Amino acid sequence: MEAPVLKLNERAERIADELAAAAPALAGRVHRVGDARVIDVGVEQTGSIEAGMVLARICLADLGTVSAAGAMTLTGASGVAVTLPSISVHVAHPVAACMASQYAGWQISAGKYFAMGSGPMRAARGKEDLFDDIGHRESSPCAVGVLETSALPTKEVIDKLTEACGVRPERLTLAAARTASLAGGVQVVARSVETALHKLHELKFDLDRIVAGFGLAPLPPVAADDMTAIGRTNDAMLYGARCVLYVRGDDASLIEIGAMLPSSSSRDYGKPFAEIFSQYDHDFYKIDPMLFSPASVTLQNVETGTTRAFGKIDDEVLATSLLSY
Amino acid sequence: MEAPVLKLNERAERIADELAAAAPALAGRVHRVGDARVIDVGVEQTGSIEAGMVLARICLADLGTVSAAGAMTLTGASGVAVTLPSISVHVAHPVAACMASQYAGWQISAGKYFAMGSGPMRAARGKEDLFDDIGHRESSPCAVGVLETSALPTKEVIDKLTEACGVRPERLTLAAARTASLAGGVQVVARSVETALHKLHELKFDLDRIVAGFGLAPLPPVAADDMTAIGRTNDAMLYGARCVLYVRGDDASLIEIGAMLPSSSSRDYGKPFAEIFSQYDHDFYKIDPMLFSPASVTLQNVETGTTRAFGKIDDEVLATSLLSY
Amino acid sequence: MEAPVLKLNERAERIADELAAAAPALAGRVHRVGDARVIDVGVEQTGSIEAGMVLARICLADLGTVSAAGAMTLTGASGVAVTLPSISVHVAHPVAACMASQYAGWQISAGKYFAMGSGPMRAARGKEDLFDDIGHRESSPCAVGVLETSALPTKEVIDKLTEACGVRPERLTLAAARTASLAGGVQVVARSVETALHKLHELKFDLDRIVAGFGLAPLPPVAADDMTAIGRTNDAMLYGARCVLYVRGDDASLIEIGAMLPSSSSRDYGKPFAEIFSQYDHDFYKIDPMLFSPASVTLQNVETGTTRAFGKIDDEVLATSLLSY
Repeated sequence: MEAPVLKLNERAERIADELAAAAPALAGRVHRVGDARVIDVGVEQTGSIEAGMVLARICLADLGTVSAAGAMTLTGASGVAVTLPSISVHVAHPVAACMASQYAGWQISAGKYFAMGSGPMRAARGKEDLFDDIGHRESSPCAVGVLETSALPTKEVIDKLTEACGVRPERLTLAAARTASLAGGVQVVARSVETALHKLHELKFDLDRIVAGFGLAPLPPVAADDMTAIGRTNDAMLYGARCVLYVRGDDASLIEIGAMLPSSSSRDYGKPFAEIFSQYDHDFYKIDPMLFSPASVTLQNVETGTTRAFGKIDDEVLATSLLSY
Repeated sequence: MEAPVLKLNERAERIADELAAAAPALAGRVHRVGDARVIDVGVEQTGSIEAGMVLARICLADLGTVSAAGAMTLTGASGVAVTLPSISVHVAHPVAACMASQYAGWQISAGKYFAMGSGPMRAARGKEDLFDDIGHRESSPCAVGVLETSALPTKEVIDKLTEACGVRPERLTLAAARTASLAGGVQVVARSVETALHKLHELKFDLDRIVAGFGLAPLPPVAADDMTAIGRTNDAMLYGARCVLYVRGDDASLIEIGAMLPSSSSRDYGKPFAEIFSQYDHDFYKIDPMLFSPASVTLQNVETGTTRAFGKIDDEVLATSLLSY
Repeated sequence: MEAPVLKLNERAERIADELAAAAPALAGRVHRVGDARVIDVGVEQTGSIEAGMVLARICLADLGTVSAAGAMTLTGASGVAVTLPSISVHVAHPVAACMASQYAGWQISAGKYFAMGSGPMRAARGKEDLFDDIGHRESSPCAVGVLETSALPTKEVIDKLTEACGVRPERLTLAAARTASLAGGVQVVARSVETALHKLHELKFDLDRIVAGFGLAPLPPVAADDMTAIGRTNDAMLYGARCVLYVRGDDASLIEIGAMLPSSSSRDYGKPFAEIFSQYDHDFYKIDPMLFSPASVTLQNVETGTTRAFGKIDDEVLATSLLSY
């Protein structure tokens, strides 16, 4: 099948223009840093759940839709049911949307500055090895990225990014939110399909077999600090996310890989992420990489018509993590 | 009450224009066949759930909204919960939207070509007897239709349709998807309100009493072949769809007709559609026509304020059909 | 934090323009009364659930999103599950959106005419004491309001409103629906966040601490008369609404106020609203004002990271009220 030319950054720039125009209404704010556009929707500004949904669409290069219309309930220690918004996402072109764009594969640092970078600017940079496997590197007149970070980017960061992406600064847009913010939480938990794809890539599965994806996860309560927020957003994925992948090819390979796919297939599964992280002396690279996956994954083979599910939601660990004081 | 002139085909053409523009992003493709526009979102192309939602809006002449934000779970033989998207639909002007437009009342054949035709082009053709009862025939400069079919329409098909609808080929748009496709599945299960209206029409109920409708149904897993897909989409409706009709008039007639309304009122109810079809030697016309209805129908009388529900969801038959290997 | 200038009426006017354009498709109708624009979506016209969602966005001065994609079930006396649409709402800038705009704080009367007035025209008028506490009075070239009323406004009403808001009649838009209509029901039950904020204001809580809100409530069946409809929409809130408020500041004050927040904290809680109203001889002002609140309120402190919930849904009272004959 011939792949259409999707122009990921140009698609995302149209959504970024909408976000910039709507920023005041979404409790965000547009800055100029050098000549680049920086949209703060959760660093110094309060931001909002709606801003997070737009962030998620930018991450996906507008190759998906995001909704926060639904809700789930979770019962904490008090025995009273807590309501949480449920974030759902549909993805067409999952490899382009999730792997070439949404995956937070660019660790951006400049001096003391740090951000997890995602969005189609990664495809404009094209430096990650991942692109050798998936393609979708692109030469673009503009670059658009999302920063999960606790500070707005400096001029030094902008210079680094424009050079890496080969764009003029006036055509660089960065939308930024900390993990511990409403918008930051939404954009992270909108990653259930991406998280499943990333794990499949780690397992050497042929990602071109995946034709579409759907996922849902609870929006964790905003945490007091980014470290706790990282724990909660991870737990929302590991213990609370459900994902459906629509796949081509044979069933045998799906049965085999399916068993390895949900977070419960990991030796580290079963405790809140913060505890696991602490147990490994806060060394991220000691954690079993197989842990990072949605709680429940349904594989639907659109060629053979079969459907199989793996893993399950764990409300108890979810409540322990998300509703902790 | 005077009826507004809704220009069904012109409304649908605007949505078709959006679908054509978005086709590459939705894993679809625009063709010219003769001078007509054919948008493939699930025949030769993969298509997507999002494309299916747009298809459904075209079917409804943009007199309704469609969402795939929610999900349901179904537990198959393995005991592991499978996630399925849930397709919901709201309809204003239900007779125009569902009966004059969405109902798949045009069996299009030309040589070996076959398609189930729906959408407002049916109102431009106006040949079905149904239009004598419901009105809404229209003379339109354009015609827009949705084809449930396993092949793209040929020039011969286009000629037949433009003549039947009285439009120039440049103003004919056909959006096509096979039943066994993501978009094809969505547009079929978005028919819960239409299915209830069609049954009410069969029962000689005055459709003008119905002022609005709401429905939900699970999106069945894409099947390996169109015959299995037809079974699954029917089962999604017969055993999995819930529908609310907002109605005017007296309550007594609603109590009487309500009991006949859900699929469970049929003698053929209780088995997967494929089994029923097989039992009648694959002769569609031997199946009890009373079977074709949503599993659960709620009738809300907006004049008297009463609400009554009939029928119920059957997760067991649903799982047997939708999760079969 | 500096507050952005949000121009509530201009924001709402853009949505009102969309509603006017879509009125025929949403079973509504645009009138001119004097030189003002009156959009009937549920007084003399049937209206629709979609029209109600647009009404709700006008009420919120387009500072929120509204969805009717989900559903809930309720089991009445017959034992058969009834389906009801579930209306969800997200709000950014909750004080501006809900208190300065959505709250139905303007009791409009002129001769025998009566309407509950909401929407940003209240901020243009600025006469309610409430605005002394919350700010957001605005001088605007246009004014937009929503009327919950059983009659379309007369020329006399229009004159009164244009004078009160200081706008020319050509720039006044009123969208109107009775309580006992589809759109009227939607716009009322989209008020869960507003209802919680209003109660917090009564309790002298500092509303600036609230940074965002999310709520869900069932859409009650349309009643035969507006009095029954008022009972049902109140019950949808008091016994059926769930709401999440994202809040800043200390936890101790949230624990203290939380216990007083849900409807169950009122001495009048536990019976359908119509019964309570009748018990107080239909004197609204004898009802405990603490009753008016969502059934369940979750308070999420975005600074300390804690989450606590108060109250609960009561399906039994809901069914008694909403499904009564």
